[in-house]
Parts: sequence; structure tokens; C-alpha cells
Amino acid sequence: MTEDLPSPALLPSGLTDLLPPEAAREAALVEAMHAVFAAHGYERVKPPLLEFEDSLLAGSGAAVADQTFRLMDPDSHRMLGLRADTTPQVARIAATRLGAVPRPLRLSYSGQVLRVRGTQLAPQRQIPQVGIELIGADSAEADAEVALLGVEALAAAGIAAPSLDITLPTMAPALLDAAGVEGDLRRKLARALDRKDAAAVTELAAIAGPPAVGLTGLLTAAGPADGALAALTAADLPPAARAIADNAAAIVAAIRARAPGLRITLDPVEFRGLHYHVGVAFTLYGPGNTGELARGGRYMSGEEPATGMTLYPDVVGRAVAAPPQPPRVFIPRGADAAAAAALRAQGFITLAALSDSDTPQSLRCSHILRGTVAAPIEENA
Amino acid sequence: MTEDLPSPALLPSGLTDLLPPEAAREAALVEAMHAVFAAHGYERVKPPLLEFEDSLLAGSGAAVADQTFRLMDPDSHRMLGLRADTTPQVARIAATRLGAVPRPLRLSYSGQVLRVRGTQLAPQRQIPQVGIELIGADSAEADAEVALLGVEALAAAGIAAPSLDITLPTMAPALLDAAGVEGDLRRKLARALDRKDAAAVTELAAIAGPPAVGLTGLLTAAGPADGALAALTAADLPPAARAIADNAAAIVAAIRARAPGLRITLDPVEFRGLHYHVGVAFTLYGPGNTGELARGGRYMSGEEPATGMTLYPDVVGRAVAAPPQPPRVFIPRGADAAAAAALRAQGFITLAALSDSDTPQSLRCSHILRGTVAAPIEENA
Repeated sequence: MTEDLPSPALLPSGLTDLLPPEAAREAALVEAMHAVFAAHGYERVKPPLLEFEDSLLAGSGAAVADQTFRLMDPDSHRMLGLRADTTPQVARIAATRLGAVPRPLRLSYSGQVLRVRGTQLAPQRQIPQVGIELIGADSAEADAEVALLGVEALAAAGIAAPSLDITLPTMAPALLDAAGVEGDLRRKLARALDRKDAAAVTELAAIAGPPAVGLTGLLTAAGPADGALAALTAADLPPAARAIADNAAAIVAAIRARAPGLRITLDPVEFRGLHYHVGVAFTLYGPGNTGELARGGRYMSGEEPATGMTLYPDVVGRAVAAPPQPPRVFIPRGADAAAAAALRAQGFITLAALSDSDTPQSLRCSHILRGTVAAPIEENA
Repeated sequence: MTEDLPSPALLPSGLTDLLPPEAAREAALVEAMHAVFAAHGYERVKPPLLEFEDSLLAGSGAAVADQTFRLMDPDSHRMLGLRADTTPQVARIAATRLGAVPRPLRLSYSGQVLRVRGTQLAPQRQIPQVGIELIGADSAEADAEVALLGVEALAAAGIAAPSLDITLPTMAPALLDAAGVEGDLRRKLARALDRKDAAAVTELAAIAGPPAVGLTGLLTAAGPADGALAALTAADLPPAARAIADNAAAIVAAIRARAPGLRITLDPVEFRGLHYHVGVAFTLYGPGNTGELARGGRYMSGEEPATGMTLYPDVVGRAVAAPPQPPRVFIPRGADAAAAAALRAQGFITLAALSDSDTPQSLRCSHILRGTVAAPIEENA
């Protein structure tokens, strides 16, 4: 190897190896989440990693178009995209191959997505995802089911008390529309809302006039859902905004009916996040400073109303304690194979000596097969 | 959508959607295989899908260089490869980040690989793989462990009686080397061996002289391992070929000691397959016409001797009977959530009605929650 070649350990930025035991752990978390989804009737699909870019970037896929790796297909001579999101692929499957299946359609998926660029906060360019899509249902119960399944999947993965953050990304635009705020003033107001700069919002909303004036009150109403919903009830809202508020109240009520102990916050005028959300948007957090464990919300799956949730098993894995590893048992050469198999059936990991240079220490074993039992190895033996 | 756009159902050739229930089934098979590997001390790693092409195509990766999708990384301005094989990545991890871990190193992996072109027999361009690599051991016991683990993983996946096909890809080259066969004659002999054309091999080997003359006998010796090993023992082999035959006999003996009932065939002069094999090569089949379920063999992992096995969960999934699906239970609106949860804990799938238009039929349910039990729905109810 010549000196100007990079070290073989050097991976492109944002692309990493998962080593033992983290790789096994992430896979176990993915399957634990899928088990929850499957028990609620969500059926797994597996779209390919590569698709024609025009189908991959259609619909909600447009939101990640500038984050999608593209490459030429030598077979079709057409451009392919390496998926940056799985939801558009599930929408394609729902609309075509599963188009004749009665609605609502409950689908789940998992796999890797790739992004051209990481961000400072999220430098990873390969992101593992597990997700569900509930397609063809537009009721508050549908949104509640998806939110609660995210919570249940996180609980199954070991997150003790997830909390649910609800935002209403269409609320601020509805208020600005009703006030007839356009152009530069609208952009400034949007930026002020984005920064949660109450003083600037108050000042700009005063210029915009009612009903934009209500934005300040809704901005400061963000917090525990009950208080935020009370503020929405008390607010003087134009009809479109009132419908959004009523829908939020119905969704919170449907969630509360199933999970009275769940911590729910509501931020009525927050509207960051994925641009394709047409109703509520969800973010799930764990206790402490876990970061976002899952995101979701209501969107259009092609022509159909849908709600989805994407969970991030890598972030979840960092947020929960690692389970203990089973003991590793050294199997000397010539030992009884049936005894080793019996130990594996009991949950032990067995490591067979393959040559005389293999020792319990070199194979990192805490136990050794003696007769038919796994005997602990003395520290100083 | 204008008419000259392709149908959204149209995927690039060799790239497909896995639908319910196949996607869940493939995932379950992958985890069943990993459970076998983990019980024998194989620890999971997860390399990224994209790497710098010069590290991805180093070593054994060169064998798939012309099958590797390449794309420009806008971050590093260097070429990336989308992996066409996982073994070179595991070799990189073993040599670098796990370089200080005592040998032998037992690693496992799973994930997708992508190929620029499919073949007529194998049109898929995205191939799911599950694999193991045993790195830093060069004994017959090491080869036997990997072969037997492939068999055990297939058995765990539901393949009743896998059979093991062993080839010795270095045998024919060793005989041709010993005979000093070069150039055009060597190429013709190689082609005749590849076609298993005994008449042509006999004719060409006669020109080449001994020990190439032995090729005809070894070609026809292919079959059950015992007969093929007897033919190798009886053959007049030059030293390098004799060492290869002795090694094959030791590996078969080590496998037989653990799996006396396993059907083993041996083809001494077959040398197709991956070019990087430096010792025995393995192929695993199921009963009937399953196709290749797994391939493996001995290779160099960087500077270290290694044996590996790659299993194909998609092919395995088509070779085994689908497990029965749990019954789907319709949960009427307002039903007791705890009763539905109890059914899920019993293994039922529950589907919640989200609106009055949801019916047991529309949600494809065979049962309905009545009180606390799942009651079967009458066909004509």
C-alpha cells in the first residue's frame, strides 16, 4: 500500500461501522419494534434500495430530493435514486401493487436510508429506520393509533416513559392565510415563529392585524397538551384554524383514552419538520436528553389520507441500557458436541477451540465446558 | 401525471418490492440464521452500504469490481461504491477496528448487496445476504465449523435436509501447474473442465502430458464425498495437489465427526465460483430443486487466513413452506383495550376499527373480539 492511499479504516463522513455488540443490539431493537407493529396488523413490505428517481422523488419524496444520491443505471440508461426516505416507496406500493386491498391499509417497513449530506446535529448519512404507515384513514383515531404504536414500540425497545410532542404545522399558515399576510411580512413572521421569538412575532403580527395577532398567544401556549388545548379553545380563531384546533383536541382525547399516563406536549404554531405534513405532526422523546426517537404525522400517500411514524433504532439504542450478554463457554477440542448443543439451548454462547492455540482467554470465555456443565473460569486460573 | 411518464409500478430490472407476507418472512429467516451464528460466538457487525471504492474493491472485493455501482460523494469529492459483497467490508473491519482482538475472530453480518447487472439465471440486482466469517484460523476444523454452521442455520430456517457440495478450486490449477500447461492449451483445458466435457479433457490432457492426464479421472470422480475422496487417494498426484486432497479429506472427516448423516458431495476439479477462494469452496442446497442456498469457502481476509459462508434468505424463503399466519381479530370501536392487548399477548393479531366503515371483512379478519375472547367469524355471517 502506497502512502498516498487513505487508511483502509477511513470511511466517508457520516458513514460508520457498527461493531459488536451494537450491531446485534440495533437488529434486536428493530425486530422488537416490528413485533409490536405486526401484533396490531401492520404488515411488512420491503421496497428496494434503488428506484427510478422520478418515482422515488414523486409525492412526499420531493421533500428529500436534494438529499438523494443519484446514479446512472447502465441497464435502463435512466437515473436511479438511492432512497433517502422510505415513505414515498410505501406510498407507491400502496397505490399500485396493493391498490386493490381494502382500506385502511396498515404497512410497516425497516431498512437503511442514505442522505447526500449530514447536518451538524445529525452527521449520519446512513440512517436505519423502522416505520409504519396507516393509509386510507383520516380519523382522529387513526392519528391516535399511529402515535400510540410509536409509544408502544419504544416501550418494547426499553424506553421507559416516552413522551409525545404534537405540533400543528398547518396552524400558523392557516392564521397567516386568514390575515391575508403575504410576501416579505409572511416570511419574517415565519422566521420569527421558527425562532420562537415572541417579541418579534408580537410586533410583526400587530402590523399584519387580526387574526395574526393570535399567534403570540398560541406561541406562548406551547407546553403540556391540556394547557395548550385550553389556549386554543379560548383563542378567537378563523374557521380553518378552528378546525385544526378541534382535530388536535380530538386526537389528544383519543390518545388519552388509551394512554392516560402518557406525557403529551402541544406546540400549536410550531411548523418546522417535514414539509409534507398536512395535519398533526408527532415527535417522540425518551426521558432525559435522548434526542428524537421517532417522528411522524399526517400526510398524503398519493391521493389517499395517511398517517405514519418513523422510528430511529440507532438513537433508541443509545438511549436504552445494553442488555447483558450471555456467558461465553469455551468448548475444548474433542469435547462432546451434544453437551455444547445443550448449553446453547440453555442460552449460553459456545466457542469451539479449533486448534491447540485457542484458549478460554483468547476466545474471551467466562466459562468452560466440563462434562456437561458450563463451569466458571477462575480469574487467576 | 402525463402519459410519457412511466407507470409508478415500474421498477428497474432486477429490483423488486417484497410484499406481505414475504417481507416479514425473509426478516424472520434472517434472524433465525443469526440466532444460530450468535449461539456459536459469531458477533454481528454492520458496515455501511457505501464506502470509498478503493477500500471496497480492495482484496476479495476486486472479484466484484465490475458489478459495483459507483457514485460521486459530494462531501469528499471521491468515488464511492455501493457494496456488491459484504466480505471485503468485514475484512476491513477485522484488520482495522478489530485488529487487536485475539484470533480467531468470529463475525456475522446481514444486509443488502447491489449489483450493476443481473444474470439470466439470477436476475436480481439487490440480494439479501446473511453471512459469517471465521478469520485467523486455517485448520480443517475451522472450515468444518463454517460448513456445519451453514447447515445448522439452514435447518433453523426450515430446510429439512441440506446437502453440502465441496469443490477444490485450487486442484485443477495445481495439476496444470505441475504439468507445466500454459497459454492456449491451459485455457482450452480450463474451458473443457468448466463444461465437464470429459472427452475434450481427456484429449487435451493427453497433449499436456502427466500429471494433467489425471484430470479426466478426477472429473468423473465427482459425486458422493467418500467415492471422490477414494479416487483422490488412488490418484497419482503431484505434491501440491496431494496436499489439497489431504486437506479435503481432513475437512470431510471433521464434518462427518459432527454430522454423520449429512449428504456431502465432492467435485475435485470444479473451479468455477468466486475467484478469491484459496482452499475448499462450499455450496449448500436443500432437498429438491431449491437452487444454491448458501456459498462459502476459504479465502484471505487481508493478510489472514479465513473461511466464510454467505446464505441467501430470499432463496431460502422460496424453498421452505410459509408458516401459518396468526389469526386476525377485529376490535370494534370502543371495545376494551385491555382485552385486545391480552389477545396480542396470546399471539393474535388485532385490528382496531377506526371508523364505522371498518368491518371484519374490510380488515381481513377471521375473528372478532367478543367480551374478552376472539370469536371466529362465520363464513356467511
